[in-house]
Amino acid sequence: MLIDDLETPVPVVDADRVERNFRTMQDYCDRHGLKLRPHIKTHKLPHLARRQVELGAVGITCQKLGEAEVMADAGLDDILISYPLIGPAKALRLAALARRVRMSVAVDNALALDTAAAAAAASGAEIGVLVEFESGAGRVGVGTVAEALALAGRIVGTPGLRFEGLMTYPLGPAAAAFIAEARDRFAAAGIAIPTVSGGGTPAAWSAHTVPGVTELRVGTYAYHDRATVAAGAATLDDCALHVVATVVSRPTPDRAVIDAGSKTLSSDLVAPEAGRGYGLLLDYPEAVITRLNEEHGTVDLSACARRPDLGERLRVLPNHVCVVSNLHDAVVMVRDGRVAGTVPVAARGRTT
Amino acid sequence: MLIDDLETPVPVVDADRVERNFRTMQDYCDRHGLKLRPHIKTHKLPHLARRQVELGAVGITCQKLGEAEVMADAGLDDILISYPLIGPAKALRLAALARRVRMSVAVDNALALDTAAAAAAASGAEIGVLVEFESGAGRVGVGTVAEALALAGRIVGTPGLRFEGLMTYPLGPAAAAFIAEARDRFAAAGIAIPTVSGGGTPAAWSAHTVPGVTELRVGTYAYHDRATVAAGAATLDDCALHVVATVVSRPTPDRAVIDAGSKTLSSDLVAPEAGRGYGLLLDYPEAVITRLNEEHGTVDLSACARRPDLGERLRVLPNHVCVVSNLHDAVVMVRDGRVAGTVPVAARGRTT
Repeated sequence: MLIDDLETPVPVVDADRVERNFRTMQDYCDRHGLKLRPHIKTHKLPHLARRQVELGAVGITCQKLGEAEVMADAGLDDILISYPLIGPAKALRLAALARRVRMSVAVDNALALDTAAAAAAASGAEIGVLVEFESGAGRVGVGTVAEALALAGRIVGTPGLRFEGLMTYPLGPAAAAFIAEARDRFAAAGIAIPTVSGGGTPAAWSAHTVPGVTELRVGTYAYHDRATVAAGAATLDDCALHVVATVVSRPTPDRAVIDAGSKTLSSDLVAPEAGRGYGLLLDYPEAVITRLNEEHGTVDLSACARRPDLGERLRVLPNHVCVVSNLHDAVVMVRDGRVAGTVPVAARGRTT
Repeated sequence: MLIDDLETPVPVVDADRVERNFRTMQDYCDRHGLKLRPHIKTHKLPHLARRQVELGAVGITCQKLGEAEVMADAGLDDILISYPLIGPAKALRLAALARRVRMSVAVDNALALDTAAAAAAASGAEIGVLVEFESGAGRVGVGTVAEALALAGRIVGTPGLRFEGLMTYPLGPAAAAFIAEARDRFAAAGIAIPTVSGGGTPAAWSAHTVPGVTELRVGTYAYHDRATVAAGAATLDDCALHVVATVVSRPTPDRAVIDAGSKTLSSDLVAPEAGRGYGLLLDYPEAVITRLNEEHGTVDLSACARRPDLGERLRVLPNHVCVVSNLHDAVVMVRDGRVAGTVPVAARGRTT
């Protein structure tokens, strides 16, 4: 089948670009002695996760148990859940996973630690635990080395848990300062830090400049998107997923409506300096997708010299590609410009 | 099972409130002589669509062929696709549907009309066609009565097509002016307008004040959300879907992180005057969900006298509930405060 024959809207993945993105990041990590533990949140596809490991990744990162279950079923055998799991229901599922594959989790609080401990006790399997620290995201993570050390001490003292090290997102000066202080104080306390894991594609290429980082968790580099291009982490030619949409209405000379709305592209924006609107129309870069309804993308053509016709097919580069993967039951894989097949997004929608 | 035992994050639907919302809207329409053709985009659930018809709806509205296929499979037999369908692939699917159930579509251009005509010719079944007009949404729809009349004339002259009337969204003064002019000019041209269909929950309760409107297309009223409450179309007690989330981190006294991010709540905002943040925490209304990542909801507690604990379960009212339904493979139905079952969201993700 030809790309032009696919019904729209449809997410299309250039498998050749994905392979190149995988190799480029693995080469970067190899060159700098970093372990690569890719985050599957972007593609959510078991065959791509397996490919990342074939190329040298030490394992994978998932955000949710449901994603890890899909990946374990597909043969991935070293999985970090970089998210605090809390409560007995999560502990039960973590235990079942830990009996099958090498599991580790990130915690920033005592309840998440208790959950990991309960899972280890229930499974009889050892579970690795990293302590997540705050480094500028203003999200999850302990704020001080003292808190990290207290949690690490509890992990070391808990049967079935293996203290795996420290984890953060993003990597920058705040991360470097925390790591430096932690290395001194953990050493003084006699606790080794096997792994320091840093995340985020936008700053990935400078991960080696943050002293002490041993592992890189990145996801978006698989496909890249308008945000990682704006961050300087990729070029438009690295972007591997785009949505093909059709102009379904041309009500005025300045307005086109495409059949890709928020159900297809999500409502995620990028920073204003990174670009306007809800995605980049690759063939009409002066056009702006000014508004999304669920199924309508309203496009302002007033800045375009050349304008798309009714019925024309357009390629949209998403602002944030990870959420686009999550919206679609399947993506179309393309090789050498031809449709190679349709692949179910096996780990999409795994919210728990 | 108890609601408190559900794994989070999870969308929970109060079936009693849904039933009440259905009855209230049907009563309104009956009282004012309006036909009700509910839009299934909000719930995407066949059993609720059937219930709407049982209570008196004349049929249903879908936005996409994929939704209509699910609903036809479930026994719904009068379906309007309120969206321009363009091209032979869409025509084939429309034809297959038209052989099974009474189908109508909305058009605002010649290509969409050609698609409907091709489907009618291929199926041998009659297809109803409405002409969509612009009434303030700035989206899809002809801008003048002359254009509407030209399309209607073509529809009337096309074998297999039945001119069904006019359609718009939203209902307001611009719609009223267009309808008034259209009635005169269509009458002069000898073309009857069987249906004038108006859409949108926010202005639904004043639909009867727009002269000439015969049919109401509304979807959000099934569940309501923060936006329809802000519009004055509902109260918080009418809201039937909320997301139960867990506090998974409390990194600072002023910050909680919940396990509902954009993959659970979507990134849709409401107008600033309607409320801040990415959803309303029903038990902590002074809290603000200031940012969503895919799996993290970051909550600012600085305005809260009472604050949630780590591990506490919170109820979130979504800003825009339709997109939340689309994110979840299933919703949990609750009756009399108890879990009645888990229902697959059969028409979710139907983007084509």
